[in-house]
This record gives sequence, structure tokens and C-alpha cells, in this order.
Amino acid sequence: MQHIQSQIEKPTLVLDESRAKRNIERMVSKAHENGVDLRPHFKTHQSATIGEWFREKGIESITVSSIDMADYFIAHDWRDVTIAFPFNLRQIRRLKDIAGKAKVNILVESMDVVRGLDEAMKGNIDVWLKIDAGYHRTGIAWDDNAGITGLAQSILQSDHLKLTGLLTHAGHTYGSSSPAKIEAIYQQTLVRLKEVRNNIRRLGVEVAISVGDTPGCSVVDDLGDVDEIRPGNFVFYDMSQVAFGSCLEEDIAVAVACPIVAKHEHRSQIVLYGGAIHLSKESLPGPDGRPVFGNIASPASRGWSASYEGNHVVSLSQEHGIVQADATLFDKAQVGGVLMVIPVHSCLTANLHGRYLTLDGNHIEMARY
Amino acid sequence: MQHIQSQIEKPTLVLDESRAKRNIERMVSKAHENGVDLRPHFKTHQSATIGEWFREKGIESITVSSIDMADYFIAHDWRDVTIAFPFNLRQIRRLKDIAGKAKVNILVESMDVVRGLDEAMKGNIDVWLKIDAGYHRTGIAWDDNAGITGLAQSILQSDHLKLTGLLTHAGHTYGSSSPAKIEAIYQQTLVRLKEVRNNIRRLGVEVAISVGDTPGCSVVDDLGDVDEIRPGNFVFYDMSQVAFGSCLEEDIAVAVACPIVAKHEHRSQIVLYGGAIHLSKESLPGPDGRPVFGNIASPASRGWSASYEGNHVVSLSQEHGIVQADATLFDKAQVGGVLMVIPVHSCLTANLHGRYLTLDGNHIEMARY
Repeated sequence: MQHIQSQIEKPTLVLDESRAKRNIERMVSKAHENGVDLRPHFKTHQSATIGEWFREKGIESITVSSIDMADYFIAHDWRDVTIAFPFNLRQIRRLKDIAGKAKVNILVESMDVVRGLDEAMKGNIDVWLKIDAGYHRTGIAWDDNAGITGLAQSILQSDHLKLTGLLTHAGHTYGSSSPAKIEAIYQQTLVRLKEVRNNIRRLGVEVAISVGDTPGCSVVDDLGDVDEIRPGNFVFYDMSQVAFGSCLEEDIAVAVACPIVAKHEHRSQIVLYGGAIHLSKESLPGPDGRPVFGNIASPASRGWSASYEGNHVVSLSQEHGIVQADATLFDKAQVGGVLMVIPVHSCLTANLHGRYLTLDGNHIEMARY
Repeated sequence: MQHIQSQIEKPTLVLDESRAKRNIERMVSKAHENGVDLRPHFKTHQSATIGEWFREKGIESITVSSIDMADYFIAHDWRDVTIAFPFNLRQIRRLKDIAGKAKVNILVESMDVVRGLDEAMKGNIDVWLKIDAGYHRTGIAWDDNAGITGLAQSILQSDHLKLTGLLTHAGHTYGSSSPAKIEAIYQQTLVRLKEVRNNIRRLGVEVAISVGDTPGCSVVDDLGDVDEIRPGNFVFYDMSQVAFGSCLEEDIAVAVACPIVAKHEHRSQIVLYGGAIHLSKESLPGPDGRPVFGNIASPASRGWSASYEGNHVVSLSQEHGIVQADATLFDKAQVGGVLMVIPVHSCLTANLHGRYLTLDGNHIEMARY
């Protein structure tokens, strides 16, 4: 990446295209082998160009997290889009607008939203019940049989809503410390969703099951009796996913190239031009339990090196990143040089940049809403 | 703010223009009474329009944190701009470009950067020594007399660099728990910088002193023998500044309006459309010591209410914000309604939005780099 490094003037999100494509290919293969549909979450990359890398592998349906993002990808010819966020009643007008252009699937979890949609919608819209299978962020609890049945019935009674499936995000895999725990959460999620499906069958309806966060879909080999999976982060992965055991560090496809602007020998710290507005303040516990905001690597002839063990971004201001460095890294780092920060959470980091610089020196644009 | 609320479809950064203008006026008055120049830091608002509110009060010189930001404000007719960040050698070309359009002041703290600048610059550029007066983020230590003198001499020997002043950011006021501690840090900073100034006088040069973070400039009445102050956050303030004692909650000029998308009664939580990409993951310790990501208020006829004690955003995903609510707020909140999140750190929150919605329903644009 010598030629990339020469292009770095300020904090720059660098993308290793071949790693991202390999990550896509692996997940497509796994879904195919399991006979489930892959509906990747595009909130991680938010880029029409990267979307095309999925389309080249046969992907036709996608997941997004906002109406704006749905609108952007529909404008880039995606025709089957799930907005995986509890439907926001204040955007009904926009929903009607985009639902005329593509098949849009939305999530509901309350009677208020069903009523609001039923009153406002004219056409027919695919509705998924947002189920809380144990994560407790949002969704209707998987064991609230009365609540789920009531919601399902009100959807079935609507002329404008079509009850299509059950959807969950088992985000508690993100707190897991081992693949075995992730696998256990995945299997528990399936058991719970199948029970919900059985209950809904009593209403005479067959619904699909949609699951699949990145840790679960990365770790679990047999994805079981589900209709689709919706991982997103896997396209880039990050240090959090390495910590969960979802991937190896060499699968991580993005890093932020940051100029070195100062060094402080007595505290063995390197000051990077690269702060909270370039990395996000997402953190992981470091070796001493205190938060770290990224791992450190060097630019290499093609991409970047493995990260230096025990060297981390330990503090972030708006534009400054402070690296606690060991003697080897400290000596190697030169003011005016560049270090690579491997992000803790690639979705939030990518969202801050607006575009990617590939190892071939090309820019890939992201959506701007 | 009924009419504003009706405009809220998605997470929206709302600006109370009269509060911001009052904050500006107060700081301008304080600087004037103290006979010091106010060179406000524009990284907080990043908006040409808001910049004009400062110009109307007589402000002529500003602070920014990047070359991009300098470029933007120079394009909006600011003619005296300090880039308060250790100069980044990889942007010398851009520095030369903007230095031809306005008086640009830069910070140096190492011989590497002095040498790099001396070789590359053609014109004459104002250089400030970045002094570490105790914060230990970056800068040359105030008591490293040999280092400071050496750096000053090398600047004095350069044909292209003009040694102009000493600049420090006493960011450790941000960890302070009381106005008395902030005042103590401010006074200690002054003592230290004056000692540095005395040492530099021995080289036959008189240098200016630039200090002033928002906590210090808000709390201290007698700003003492300094030439300029550079606070930035005070234009909006935020919950962190309330915690430090820099301001009252009613001084906070920005809040993020967030649609309510779900409620979970058994855990008394409200789900907002408003996540890490709208608020930032900056946190403060909450009442139970766990991090909180914002306080909660209601839209009001003009702006928003006082925040509800004990009600906070306790968890953030990319687009979801989870509010832990007491019974009163929980009952009041309706799916399809709007809550206001008063940010922990307004600079990072504003940076995520791109524009402001004023209480009069106007949009104010921010810079896009």
C-alpha cells in the first residue's frame, strides 16, 4: 500500500476490496449450502457500489435500517428491501412513496403502529412481526403469546397489511465471549421463533422466519430451519467481531489511515490526526480493562500489517487519537508518517466518512442522506 | 414548538437560536470586560450562518481544528484563522493554498514539524507553540525549558515562520467536578504559561498567550493576563458542561428530536428512532454509575421542556436509542410522538447531522467536507 499511503493527507477510510469480496462470498456460500436466503444488511457499508458486489453473487433482497437508506438503494435498483427497524409512524408519507417503487417490508411490534398503517396505507405492504427472542432491545416478547396473536390477527384483518413473517435480531450475541455461547443463543432463538410460528399457524397462516446477526451467521455451521438470514457487519468485520470469535483479524476489510502528528516519549504515546469524528467512540475493554478505541497497524505494500499486540488508541477527542505504544512501535512511528487504526465497530466508523479509498487508489462513494 | 414537532419525521438536530445568541453575547461581553480577544472555536457548530452571529458581535478571528474547516470558513470571509491542532505535515500543500487567502495561524510542538514547514513554506506563517500545561494530551511540556527554547530558536531562525505565541488547551477542566477545581486549573495554566513566556523573553521575543476551554472561560470571572481565549462548546453547551458546572441546563441550545417507535412496559423503556449515528456514543456516568447518552425532555411550545430527572438514554445501537423512563414519562410517551434528547457532547452530536432546524422552522446548513 505504499502508493495508498502516499495519498493519505488526513484521516481516510481505507477498504481492502478483496477481503470484503471474500467475506461476501463466504456468507453467500454458507447461506446457499444451508438452503436459506441471504438478505444482507446494507447499513454497514451504505454504498451502491459495494451493493453491486453482493448482486454479482446473486443477492436480490436486502436489509436496511431507515427509510432514507431504503430510498437510496431503491434508487440503485434494489427491488426487495426490508427496513429492519420498528416502523416509524412519522414517516408514513415516505413509506407510501417508496412502497410504490419496490417491494418494501416493514416491521411492526405494536397495535398503535398496525392501526396507523392500516389507516394510512392504500396499497398492500408486507409486514413482519418484530420478535424479541431474548435480546430485550425492542420487539414483542417471543413468549407473549396473547400479544403476538392479537397483533397477528389485527394485521390479518387489515386490507392493506400482509402478514409475512417473524423477524428477530439476537443482538445479545454481541456480548458473547465465545463461539459456543453465540451458537447457544442462535439455537435458542430458533427454538423460540419456531414456537411463535406454531402459535401463528393456529390462525391458519404460514409465516417466514428471518434471523441472523453477524456473530451468529459467522459462527454457526448449520443455520437450521429458517427462511432468511440478515447479517450486515460481516462485509467488513471489526475488532469487536474478532473479540466475539466471529472472524479473524485478517478478515477485517476496513481501517482508518491516520497521519502521525506528535510523539510523547516520556509517556510512550503517539498522537494521531484521527479522533471521535473519524473512528466513533465505540470501545472495547483493553488489556487493563480500560476502553480502547481501535487497534494499530502499519500501512503495508498491499493493505496493512497485522495489528501490534498491546498497542491501542486509548483516548479520543474530536480530532485527536492517542495511541499508547510499546517501545518498538514508538520508535518506528515518525511524525509525518501514517498509522492504520483497525476499528472497534466498522458500521459506526464507516458511517462517519462518506467514502472509501480502495487499495487500488479508487474512491467508492457512500450514500449521503 | 408545536409547529416544529409537526416537522419531525426522523432524528433532527434542533437549535434554539436565541439561546445560542445569548451564549455568544455573554462570552463576548466577558472577553470585552477582561480586555482579552475572543477567538471562538468553530468546530462545535461548523456553520457559516452561525459564524455570522459571532461576526455581528464584533468577532474577527476564529479557531478551527482542521485544514478543511479553515478552508470552509475562509471561503466564508474569515480572514484570521487558527488551526488549533498539531500541524499535520501531510497537508503542507493545502496549508500553502489557504495561507495565500487569509492569515492562518498554526501550532507546532516538535522540531520535525518546524523543519518540514521551513523547507516547504515560501511565505510567512504565524506559528504558535503548542504547550502542554498539564492536560497531557499533546503539546510540549510547559516545564521542558530546553525543549521549548530549542523549538523557539529554530522558529526564530526560519525565514518562513514567525513565532507569535503560546497556545494551550487545558482540557483537564473537562474532568473537573466543580467550578472551584476548574478555576484552579485555569489559574495554574496561566502561571505556567507566563513562566514559559518569561523564558522566551530571554531570547528577545515577546509572545502572546492563548488559553481557554469552555469550562474555564465559563466559570472564571477574572481571565487574567492573557491575550486571547478560544472556547467553542459554549455556543451550544451540553449535559457534560452542566455536570462540570459551566452552565445551567437552560443554556443548552441544541437537542435531537427523536420519534418514539416502541414502548416496553415491563422494563419501563421507550425506544427512540435516534441512535449512535445521531447522538454519538459519548457518555456521562448516570445516577447508578452506568453510562448515559443523553437526557430526555419534551417538545414545548417554544423549544423543549426541562429534562426529566432520572430519565436517560441508557443504550444506543446504530439507529435505536433506549430510554429508561419513570412511570410518569412512560405514560406520557406515545408511539408516533417525539422526545427531545439533550446531548452529552454537543460538538460530536452536531457533527453527525449536517444541518440544524431552528425553532422558527428554518434549516441552517453545516459544512460538508
